[in-house]
Amino acid sequence: MNITYLSDDILSMESKYRASFINSLGGFKSVVLIGTINANKQENLAIFSSLFHIGANPALCGLIFRPISEPRHSLDNILETKEYTINHLNKKIYKQAHQTSARYDKSISEFNATQLTAEYIPGIMAPFVKESKIKFVCKLEQKIDLKINGTTLLIGKIIYVSLPKKCIKTDGFIDIEKAGTITLSGLDAYHKTNKINRLSYAKPNSLIKNIPF
Amino acid sequence: MNITYLSDDILSMESKYRASFINSLGGFKSVVLIGTINANKQENLAIFSSLFHIGANPALCGLIFRPISEPRHSLDNILETKEYTINHLNKKIYKQAHQTSARYDKSISEFNATQLTAEYIPGIMAPFVKESKIKFVCKLEQKIDLKINGTTLLIGKIIYVSLPKKCIKTDGFIDIEKAGTITLSGLDAYHKTNKINRLSYAKPNSLIKNIPF
Repeated sequence: MNITYLSDDILSMESKYRASFINSLGGFKSVVLIGTINANKQENLAIFSSLFHIGANPALCGLIFRPISEPRHSLDNILETKEYTINHLNKKIYKQAHQTSARYDKSISEFNATQLTAEYIPGIMAPFVKESKIKFVCKLEQKIDLKINGTTLLIGKIIYVSLPKKCIKTDGFIDIEKAGTITLSGLDAYHKTNKINRLSYAKPNSLIKNIPF
Repeated sequence: MNITYLSDDILSMESKYRASFINSLGGFKSVVLIGTINANKQENLAIFSSLFHIGANPALCGLIFRPISEPRHSLDNILETKEYTINHLNKKIYKQAHQTSARYDKSISEFNATQLTAEYIPGIMAPFVKESKIKFVCKLEQKIDLKINGTTLLIGKIIYVSLPKKCIKTDGFIDIEKAGTITLSGLDAYHKTNKINRLSYAKPNSLIKNIPF
């Protein structure tokens, strides 16, 4: 049996109920840890579920930051240094990753608070999460303020990638399931995945084939 | 063993290889069918993996459309009627959903071409996918041209939702796994999910608990 909701039903939901409901609606989401640092070497680590693909050439991705009325430590750091790391979650670290969403004071490093390990490499200022298997670095390209609700969209260019060699396939596909990457639904539900199939490039009047996975 | 890529490595990838690589990097993605129609009753149905959450109050989501240099039938229809349906994928329809990505002529309805069923309800112009379990309608609120690569971001307001009653929890969470919703990695890899846990709201100096799921 189905249940339907109209605009007024959504408007009249209690605010936490609505947040959970609307966050669930969009389907399974990318869930990542964003690592940043400011000029005073104050680290920050925060979980995000709004990462999305914008283009492959140049290699661009987008990320939504909460409204200007709330603390935005990650955003402040990125605007200062123009750089951030994006780290996939796996089953071993998802509780620590979730804990980074607590409202810590700006002077607290979420790496210390959650006992995740900050990892630095030459040439990149921002800290990686050592326990993460697939990670990459974005250089800030553009900031767009979304006046409709006070959130901010950052567009970043991917300038560095690190991943387990066993996960890269001959056609460029990365087997993120093999790396243990997990996914999120709603605000707080974590899921493992089981591959169904890869499907061949679709053409009109031609049958899709399964691709070995 | 890890493998690393720098900007020049990404730039020098063959174009299909790079598309697959960069599309894989962002993690698991929401994958949905967007249903539209124009004033001449020409239907369109297209698979998208760039849906993302922007806010819950008002209830807003974003969607990226390919560069202006390519055909954008869904976008043209939305700009004409200001309305589109968003339909979750499940295991029964993912091959048909994938087939909608073939480059059909504008005069062809992908509903007919893929034998998915268009469903209409009073008060909503755009067609739903009957075989989809969780579906909702967006009214176009804002169009932002991303000059950085010629893509377009549409922001839509959620004005109607339909889902199986058994999937809605007392706190507003929607159990999309129970509805059979699936997820995507890369350009063409489909995955089922297995819940790990829901986690309680995180606070500093407080232990996270599991939430019954």
